[in-house]
Amino acid sequence: MIPVRLIATGKAVPSQSVTSDSLDRQLGHPPGYTLRKSGVVSRFVAAPGESQSQLGAAALLDALKNAGLQPSDVDLLIGACGVPEQALPNTACFIALHAGLPPGTPAFDINASCLSFMAALRVAASMLADGGYRRIAIVSADLASRGVDWSEPESSMIFGDGAAAVIVERGDGKAGIVACKMATYPEGRRYCEIRGGGTERNPRNGSEPGDYLFHMDGKAVFRLAVKVMPAFLDQLMAESGAGLDRIDVVVPHQASPLGLAHAARILDVPDAKIIKIFETHGNQVAASLPSALHEAVITGRAVPGQRLLMMGTAAGLTIGGMILDL
Amino acid sequence: MIPVRLIATGKAVPSQSVTSDSLDRQLGHPPGYTLRKSGVVSRFVAAPGESQSQLGAAALLDALKNAGLQPSDVDLLIGACGVPEQALPNTACFIALHAGLPPGTPAFDINASCLSFMAALRVAASMLADGGYRRIAIVSADLASRGVDWSEPESSMIFGDGAAAVIVERGDGKAGIVACKMATYPEGRRYCEIRGGGTERNPRNGSEPGDYLFHMDGKAVFRLAVKVMPAFLDQLMAESGAGLDRIDVVVPHQASPLGLAHAARILDVPDAKIIKIFETHGNQVAASLPSALHEAVITGRAVPGQRLLMMGTAAGLTIGGMILDL
Repeated sequence: MIPVRLIATGKAVPSQSVTSDSLDRQLGHPPGYTLRKSGVVSRFVAAPGESQSQLGAAALLDALKNAGLQPSDVDLLIGACGVPEQALPNTACFIALHAGLPPGTPAFDINASCLSFMAALRVAASMLADGGYRRIAIVSADLASRGVDWSEPESSMIFGDGAAAVIVERGDGKAGIVACKMATYPEGRRYCEIRGGGTERNPRNGSEPGDYLFHMDGKAVFRLAVKVMPAFLDQLMAESGAGLDRIDVVVPHQASPLGLAHAARILDVPDAKIIKIFETHGNQVAASLPSALHEAVITGRAVPGQRLLMMGTAAGLTIGGMILDL
Repeated sequence: MIPVRLIATGKAVPSQSVTSDSLDRQLGHPPGYTLRKSGVVSRFVAAPGESQSQLGAAALLDALKNAGLQPSDVDLLIGACGVPEQALPNTACFIALHAGLPPGTPAFDINASCLSFMAALRVAASMLADGGYRRIAIVSADLASRGVDWSEPESSMIFGDGAAAVIVERGDGKAGIVACKMATYPEGRRYCEIRGGGTERNPRNGSEPGDYLFHMDGKAVFRLAVKVMPAFLDQLMAESGAGLDRIDVVVPHQASPLGLAHAARILDVPDAKIIKIFETHGNQVAASLPSALHEAVITGRAVPGQRLLMMGTAAGLTIGGMILDL
């Protein structure tokens, strides 16, 4: 086990929310269409003046408040977003600014698309275990609304904006990562993507407006995930040395109703153990996992002594699972 | 000390190179202008069909060959670029594809702008120390040519494209990170930036072509770096428990002639100990540090038993230093 203790979680959502009913009216769909297609009742959407890093900073300050800590108590900030605020510099620099971290606090990003939070938590545990840092903040913030393509019903309706943060310490060795596995299948690299924004497509070497929007082949994602996930989960459970009956709470990436249903089916755990915030938040990209974790914590469904399973899929295509003793 | 051993390094450059003489002719400058302004004699530039991840994969395959290893010997790939190939998914997915890593090999990115390689090496050492992984590949690739603004002489002339990779293992405990410090000063977040490419500026919420180009206030970077670097280096040396006289080789980020000269001045080590590839490569963004490290290794200036100092500045503004026993 790699020791790590969640000191506190925090969350932030933008000031505006949009119901599927109102999306029906805006996009000219018949009543009930967006809800039926997406499974989302309402999602939060950033106003034009709201930035990704401001939202991330609000989540971090919420987590610090819940921990009874100050910004100066953070030794290292890891930004764990799916899409950056800008191509350069890394998003953590902007979050550090808005959260008022003392100048000089190190801040870098980890990116594993929708599983950035899981990768960052795995890294943070390692960096705490070797004594290099005492307390690490991980912040995931994403504004999917800035990149959805409304001409693609499947991908545009499921997303919502948001941010969440956790503060972690090494702890006393009782809490920690029992098992963690991530696996990347580059055959799925084009199943979910925003082609623009980097060195491949930009105004210098040729791009079109659609290159800056999110495109998804949901069926291809689902097919690949269904193929690789069962054996992957078996290996993860085997590494943990215990079965699914030992899992007290499941925090899945809130990808889609289909994805959540598939997770429930292959896990074979009671539905009440699975955290679901998809209906009220949509898929919040990398902010989904820590937002669902925060929900588990504040509703008392994830408490010290329990064993938690975090799992999901991400653009790449990457799949990941982590078993965490709280 | 956090144990970590460099098994091998590798490097790749694009097929084309451009001399400062030929830039003078292309941009209508008098002969000698670009060389005098930039300090770069020649830099490598990717051809239209060459991608960042292909270059990164070539560097990784070179490192694997130098180590006598196969792609299947990599347990984890960390992409450590300054700017991504596209906004989503992370660049490591594309590098994994082109390098032929077995499907399922985990791949994520770490981004600390020009210090991404240093951050990734620090993280890799931690992840090797706790036994989670046996062998990690770190790949930095950047194509600055896709984002330079030729109307800004100061920032456009110093850059070059390139990639480098290292393979690391835990080792026997003799080699490792003796000290590592990174510090982020968000007051400098706009001194070097590409504003577009993420959630802040894109065709959805309004952007212009210049937003996708690199902008730099070199004087402001230099002023802030000069202010914070000396005390930072003193602390780093103090953490290492030994002085600069114990350093056998210095691998600085190849930022600019001014930056390299300042590093030489405050370090007070013989010039022959400082690795310089700036004249023949320019500033290769995140690929600079590992490319200079590769140069140190292949020229026999960095060999097992030696103590190496890596240091530099990055957009953010982040400064970093690492003392590594090879």
